[in-house]
Amino acid sequence: MARAPISTLATRHLLGLQGMTAPELCEFLHATRELDTSSTDVARTLEGRSIANLFFEDSTRTRGSFSVAAARLGASVVDLLGSTLSISKGETLIDTACNVEAMGVSALIVRARQAGSSRMISRAVRIPVINAGDGKHEHPTQGLLDIFTLAEAHGRLEDFSLKGLTVAIVGDVASSRVARSNIAGMRTLGATVVCVGPPGMAPKSFESLGCKVAHELDPILPKADAVMMLRIQFERHGESANNPGAAGSGEAGKSLTIASVREFRERFGLTAARADRMKPGAVVMHPGPINRGIELDAQVADGPRSLILRQVSVGVLVRMAVLRALVGE
Amino acid sequence: MARAPISTLATRHLLGLQGMTAPELCEFLHATRELDTSSTDVARTLEGRSIANLFFEDSTRTRGSFSVAAARLGASVVDLLGSTLSISKGETLIDTACNVEAMGVSALIVRARQAGSSRMISRAVRIPVINAGDGKHEHPTQGLLDIFTLAEAHGRLEDFSLKGLTVAIVGDVASSRVARSNIAGMRTLGATVVCVGPPGMAPKSFESLGCKVAHELDPILPKADAVMMLRIQFERHGESANNPGAAGSGEAGKSLTIASVREFRERFGLTAARADRMKPGAVVMHPGPINRGIELDAQVADGPRSLILRQVSVGVLVRMAVLRALVGE
Amino acid sequence: MARAPISTLATRHLLGLQGMTAPELCEFLHATRELDTSSTDVARTLEGRSIANLFFEDSTRTRGSFSVAAARLGASVVDLLGSTLSISKGETLIDTACNVEAMGVSALIVRARQAGSSRMISRAVRIPVINAGDGKHEHPTQGLLDIFTLAEAHGRLEDFSLKGLTVAIVGDVASSRVARSNIAGMRTLGATVVCVGPPGMAPKSFESLGCKVAHELDPILPKADAVMMLRIQFERHGESANNPGAAGSGEAGKSLTIASVREFRERFGLTAARADRMKPGAVVMHPGPINRGIELDAQVADGPRSLILRQVSVGVLVRMAVLRALVGE
Repeated sequence: MARAPISTLATRHLLGLQGMTAPELCEFLHATRELDTSSTDVARTLEGRSIANLFFEDSTRTRGSFSVAAARLGASVVDLLGSTLSISKGETLIDTACNVEAMGVSALIVRARQAGSSRMISRAVRIPVINAGDGKHEHPTQGLLDIFTLAEAHGRLEDFSLKGLTVAIVGDVASSRVARSNIAGMRTLGATVVCVGPPGMAPKSFESLGCKVAHELDPILPKADAVMMLRIQFERHGESANNPGAAGSGEAGKSLTIASVREFRERFGLTAARADRMKPGAVVMHPGPINRGIELDAQVADGPRSLILRQVSVGVLVRMAVLRALVGE
Repeated sequence: MARAPISTLATRHLLGLQGMTAPELCEFLHATRELDTSSTDVARTLEGRSIANLFFEDSTRTRGSFSVAAARLGASVVDLLGSTLSISKGETLIDTACNVEAMGVSALIVRARQAGSSRMISRAVRIPVINAGDGKHEHPTQGLLDIFTLAEAHGRLEDFSLKGLTVAIVGDVASSRVARSNIAGMRTLGATVVCVGPPGMAPKSFESLGCKVAHELDPILPKADAVMMLRIQFERHGESANNPGAAGSGEAGKSLTIASVREFRERFGLTAARADRMKPGAVVMHPGPINRGIELDAQVADGPRSLILRQVSVGVLVRMAVLRALVGE
Repeated sequence: MARAPISTLATRHLLGLQGMTAPELCEFLHATRELDTSSTDVARTLEGRSIANLFFEDSTRTRGSFSVAAARLGASVVDLLGSTLSISKGETLIDTACNVEAMGVSALIVRARQAGSSRMISRAVRIPVINAGDGKHEHPTQGLLDIFTLAEAHGRLEDFSLKGLTVAIVGDVASSRVARSNIAGMRTLGATVVCVGPPGMAPKSFESLGCKVAHELDPILPKADAVMMLRIQFERHGESANNPGAAGSGEAGKSLTIASVREFRERFGLTAARADRMKPGAVVMHPGPINRGIELDAQVADGPRSLILRQVSVGVLVRMAVLRALVGE
C-alpha cells in the first residue's frame, strides 16, 4: 500500500479507525515504524507545546502512555481528570473542551464514557482531538498499536498489508471499543477477523462490521494467526451479576455469576492447553489489563507467543507518531 | 497611568486586588499585553524551576490555566491536590506550605476553602504565593484577566483606565470571590461597578466595597458597558435547597428550589431578549463554568458580545505575567 | 569510610537500607553532599527521560519530593496514582509495573501498602525500582535523608561515620517504616539507636534489629544527640480507637482513646520542658507530617534544635542523587 502524504488526511483529528482508508492507516503505521527504528532519540518536535489529557473517565494505562509519548516529544502534559472537571458544576462537555482549547493547548486527548464524545468535541474546537476511548465505540490508537504489533510479528512492516491473516478476537467483544477499532482497521488492511464469544458477548449483529462471528473457540483456534483475548468488563456487567437464574444459560454477558465466569473460562479462556493447539507462529495479544486465570492463563500471558508487553511499548510509539502527525512538525 | 517598576511592588506575593494601587495593577496588565503581542514565543524564563499547585480544593480550570502558563515559561509543575494533602493526617495548612517550600519550589499557587489562607501562608514562607482563590474572598488573577479582557474590548489597552465604563456583575455576588476581586480592581482603575441580584445574593452591605447594589437587572442593562454573569454556586447553597417554604420570597440565595431557580432566571438571567437591549459595544463576560439556560442563554454565551473564551485565553497570559514578575526574570 | 564506585553496588534498585553496607550508603550520601554544595545548577542529566511515580497509596510529601527531584534533573514525571490504577480492574501489581516499564520509563518510584511490594516488582522489571515506602517495612530515601541531616548537624559530612552518636526514635515505632530504615542505616554507620515508646509502639522484639528499646523517654533524653519524633499513625490504629477498656493500660498502640493520647503526650511527647533537658547540640527531627501538640510541641518544632525543614530540603537532594546514580549519568 502506498504512503499518503499527511496533507491528504481528511481531518486533523483521530476519532476512530472506522471509515479510514488503508493509506490513512498506513501513514500512522509508517511513522511509528520510523520512530521505532531511528537510532538517535527523536527530536523534541513539540518542545514548548502543551497537550491536555481531558479524561472524563480515568485510565492509568492510556493516560500514562500518552503522557510518556508527549514528554518524549518535549511537550508538557496537563492532566484534567474525572470528577474534578467542571462537568460536576453543570458545565457541558463542549464548554469544558472549548475552555481547555482557549488556554492554548495544542491538542486534546479525550477519554469519555459516551460514544461519540470525541467527535462532538472535534466539531467545536480547532485543535486536533485524539479519541482515547469513547464508551464502547472506538479506541483508535489502541487499534493502530495492535495492528502494528501484529504486522511486526508476521513480517508485514513493509506495507502493513494483513492479507491472508486470520485474527480471532475472543471474549467480551460487545463491551469493547478496542474490538470495534481493531475490526475496522484490520479489515481495511486485508485481514479476516472472527469475533468469538457467547452470544451475549459476541452477537451476530457484529457481522455488519465486516467480521465473522463464532460461538465456540476450539474450531477457530487452529486457523488463527493471532488470538486477541479481551478482559470481561465486570464493571459494565455489574448490574446483572446477582442474577443467578441466568447462570449457565450461555448468555455469559448477561449474568456474571461465579458459575458463568467458570463456564466462560472453560469455553473461551486461552488456557495453556489451548495455546498448544495454536498454529506455529500464531501470536497472543491482549489490550490489558489482564485478569490472569480467567480469560488468559498466566503461562500463556508470559509465554513465547505473547506480544502483550510489546503492545504496550508500541503504544507509546504510535501515540508519538499520531501527536507528531496531527500537532505538527 | 504610569508603569511602576516591579521593584516598587509592596510584596512579591499576589494575594488580592483589594488594596493594590493602579500602578501595581498596571504592572501586571502591561506585562500581559506584552506577552499577548510579542511575535516570537516567550523565552523560557523559568526553565529548571518548579512551581507547586497547592490546591486544598481542586479546580480544573484554574489549575489547568496556571499549569499551561508555567509550562510555557519552561517551569515544571508539581500538583499537590485536595484530599491527598497531609492535612488529612493532622498537619496544619502552614506546615504543609512550609514543607513544599523546603522542597525548593519557586512559587506556591494556593487554592483553599477558607478566606485568608493565602495571606496566612505568605507570612510563613519566603517564596512568592499566588492566591488562586480563597473561599469567598479573592481570586486576583481572575480579576486581572477580567480587567484586561474588558480593557481590550473597549480600547483601553494603552493605560488600562476604565473611567467612564459601567460594569454590572450579576447573580450570586455574595458567594463570589471573583466579584470581590473585580470590584476592587475595576474600581481602582476608574470603572463604576454595579452588583445586581436578589438581596440574598447581592446584599446592600456590598456598597462598603465601593460599588453600587441593585435588585433588578432590567433598569441597569441599558447603562452597562459590560455585563459579567456569575454562576449560582449550588454547592454553596446546598443546605437550603430543601426548604420549599422560602421559594418565591425573593431570597433566592437562601432557597434554591426549582421554582426559585426559574424565578432567578426570569429576573436576572441574561436571556437573548435581554442581550438585545444592551448598549452597542457592550460586552458579556462570565468567569465560568457556565450553567447554560440558567444565568446565561446559550445564544448569548456563543454570540458576538461574548468574551468568555477570550477571558480564558487571557487568563493564561495573565498567569504567565504574574509568574514572571514574582518568580523572576 | 571509603567511597565505593557506583558499579560495585549490588543492585541498581534502592529497596531498603537493611542489608546495605556502609560504602553503599556512603555512595548516595556523598553524591547528596556534592549536589548540595555545587555552586552551579546541576546538569539536566535526565533530560528526555520519564520517571513514573507508581503510587498504589498516595503521599503528597514523598511524591512531591521525587517529582521536584526528577524535574530538576530534567526528567518528566508521570503520576500513576492510587485508585485509578488498573489493580481495581483485577490486574496484579506486577502486571501493572511491567506495563509501565514497557512504556519506556527509566525508573519506577513505588509506594505500596504491602511490605515487600517494591522488591517483588524489582524482580520482574529491568529498570531501577526505588522503594518510596512499602507498608511498615522500609522507606530508604527517608532513611538516607535523615542520616544526611543528622551527619550534617554533627559535622560528620566528611565520612558520614555516626560513631559515638546516640539517636532516640520516639513514639509509634512499630507502625513506622521510617524507623526501620533509620535503625538499619544509622546502625551500619555506627550510631547507637534507642527506640522509645509504650510496649505496644516500641516492642522489645525491635532489639533484634540491633537497636535498644526503652519504655520511658525521660531517662534517655539527656543522652541523645538526636531525638526523632514519630507521628502516631492514627489511620493504622483506627480499629481499636473505640476500645475504652484498654485506656491507660500503657498499651497506647492498641487503644487510641483521647485519654491514651493525652497519656502518650505526657510520657513521650517532646514538650518544650523536655527539649530544655536535651544535651547541648542535640537536635530534633521528625519525618512529618507533624501533629503539633501531640508528639511535638509547636515551639520545639519551630525552635533552634529543629531540623525538620532541613530534612525536607535534603530529601530532594537525596532523591536527585539516587535517581542519578540508578538511572544513569
